[in-house]
Amino acid sequence: MHFRHHKIQDTHITLAHGSGGKAMRDLIDDIFVNTFNNPILSQLEDQATFNLAPLLQQGDRLAFTTDSYVIDPLFFPGSDIGELAINGTINDLAVSGAKPLYLTCSVILEEGLPIETLQRVATSMKAAATKSGIQIVTGDTKVVHRGAADKLFINTAGIGIIPRGINISAHNIQPGDAVIINGELGNHGVAILIARGELALETNIESDCQPLHDLVQHILNICPQIHAMRDATRGGLATVLNEFATTSNVGIRLYEESIPVREEVKGFCEILGLDPFYLANEGKLVVVAKKEYAESIVSAMKSHPAGKDACVIGEVITSPPGIVLLKTIFGAERIVDMLVGDQLPRIC
Amino acid sequence: MHFRHHKIQDTHITLAHGSGGKAMRDLIDDIFVNTFNNPILSQLEDQATFNLAPLLQQGDRLAFTTDSYVIDPLFFPGSDIGELAINGTINDLAVSGAKPLYLTCSVILEEGLPIETLQRVATSMKAAATKSGIQIVTGDTKVVHRGAADKLFINTAGIGIIPRGINISAHNIQPGDAVIINGELGNHGVAILIARGELALETNIESDCQPLHDLVQHILNICPQIHAMRDATRGGLATVLNEFATTSNVGIRLYEESIPVREEVKGFCEILGLDPFYLANEGKLVVVAKKEYAESIVSAMKSHPAGKDACVIGEVITSPPGIVLLKTIFGAERIVDMLVGDQLPRIC
Repeated sequence: MHFRHHKIQDTHITLAHGSGGKAMRDLIDDIFVNTFNNPILSQLEDQATFNLAPLLQQGDRLAFTTDSYVIDPLFFPGSDIGELAINGTINDLAVSGAKPLYLTCSVILEEGLPIETLQRVATSMKAAATKSGIQIVTGDTKVVHRGAADKLFINTAGIGIIPRGINISAHNIQPGDAVIINGELGNHGVAILIARGELALETNIESDCQPLHDLVQHILNICPQIHAMRDATRGGLATVLNEFATTSNVGIRLYEESIPVREEVKGFCEILGLDPFYLANEGKLVVVAKKEYAESIVSAMKSHPAGKDACVIGEVITSPPGIVLLKTIFGAERIVDMLVGDQLPRIC
Repeated sequence: MHFRHHKIQDTHITLAHGSGGKAMRDLIDDIFVNTFNNPILSQLEDQATFNLAPLLQQGDRLAFTTDSYVIDPLFFPGSDIGELAINGTINDLAVSGAKPLYLTCSVILEEGLPIETLQRVATSMKAAATKSGIQIVTGDTKVVHRGAADKLFINTAGIGIIPRGINISAHNIQPGDAVIINGELGNHGVAILIARGELALETNIESDCQPLHDLVQHILNICPQIHAMRDATRGGLATVLNEFATTSNVGIRLYEESIPVREEVKGFCEILGLDPFYLANEGKLVVVAKKEYAESIVSAMKSHPAGKDACVIGEVITSPPGIVLLKTIFGAERIVDMLVGDQLPRIC
């Protein structure tokens, strides 16, 4: 794809691009306004504004979230920091049951970053936003000296609307609930590890980076009584389930044989001493609902492209409270604790 | 002030604090949840949620904004990065006429940052939030390797509600309008420059970092027909007025003798070859309204602590369109162009 940069003459980011003056304005016009291309952003006020009345027609609660993205490398098999910054924040809204509407885009750029890299990232953000029907409505651009940041960090904040009658929270989980996942675990973590090139290993594994809001609405249409939902990002499935167990003061029992992990991912984890349950994902939805709804939820998920490998992976139990147990394929039972230490820095 | 850190044993940030696991959870609990201390944040869901109905009682439009803060040093005369991250985003909401309600807090931490530094910054954010009656309702914590970021960057996004009948925009400005400022220009820029210690200069000048939303509501109560408002941050007064002139396709004439700049700031600017009209401010409000309202606006501003040095500094003219002119104290007239180049990097 070719972009005409009418105003920017530079090929690399300079400190002037963060000055607040003409160079910054030209960068914002050429890269962000041109690429994101929507009437709210194009106003270039210090804030985006929307009428509340149309929002109220879609639901009765507002969801508000933020995430910063520092992933290294910027581009990796299956995705890049731009798509991730859109999908990650969409997903943080989606797991409340919200329909994502508007996102911000705030970048911290290292002096010397190629403008072409920034354009590639912005283009990827726009594609992800368009795919999910959301708009990037306001932003900010900062530049720091060479060496004061590593290439490019992105923050996106997002707002969405929660439809009436939806009440999803980690506090709602009850013994007897089923734990459901929408597909394979660990692909994102492994893809990033390989992309860093520090290992003499090759693979076809790609990041699972995808937006989950449409899958979530699809599930809620069939079963609005979902108790809890979360996307299993940093810290992986194990972290989400430990948070669920602690917050609702219940136990969770997982069945190892039911948890979808690709053979290649298992192999990598064995070689590197990693556990796929702690690996980061960027498109994996953990759903907790009453067991009686499990079958229809799984079947709804399987009928959606983002959930075709959905399955029940465990159940919520009374005791031991606050603990996640794994029934291994050998029939033994072990505790799956919170992640301790740093498994993989800058994974998102 | 003494903080009890019940869970964190470390004295410095490690990569584990960004892992998504136990160390990160403990850091978030000990520093952010404890310090920011409000029921929405304490839920620790991936998003904050609010009912829309109470918002509608306060106004009919939502304002949404974001800013990243990379200021160096973190602590400086008159303020610090934490207070700045709250007030800066409050101000971006306030200049739309919005009442700021909820802010996010997303931090990027460099491995090795003293936890005590993070606690000081969080404490400052909480104090600024409390002072302005807003809540920090959701956040994110990332850690990067030593050398991949400089100490600490903060992003805050914010939402606010615009009262009915308010329509403030850079597009509204008309010939015959007056240009008003709430006080002295350039103090923030000079305070930062001195704080960096690169100059063998000393001064009592402090950053003007302050929230402007209360001043804005005070003005709107007296004159809801304000045409445009903006806070003069990076790029200073000159940049704001150039954006106004371009957006509304009008000319602006400033009167140098009317523009409040402290003698010490003028002196510094002369020594360093800087222009106070381009220096960053963090508590300066530029207001444009019909000339007939100017006197009552200035008098309203003077009765508020954040506007006690308010005055009219210029007028909007038909021609030359898109140009800002300065009538100097010697009676000559010169063009005040957009800032070109980088005056002061990492000023906010």
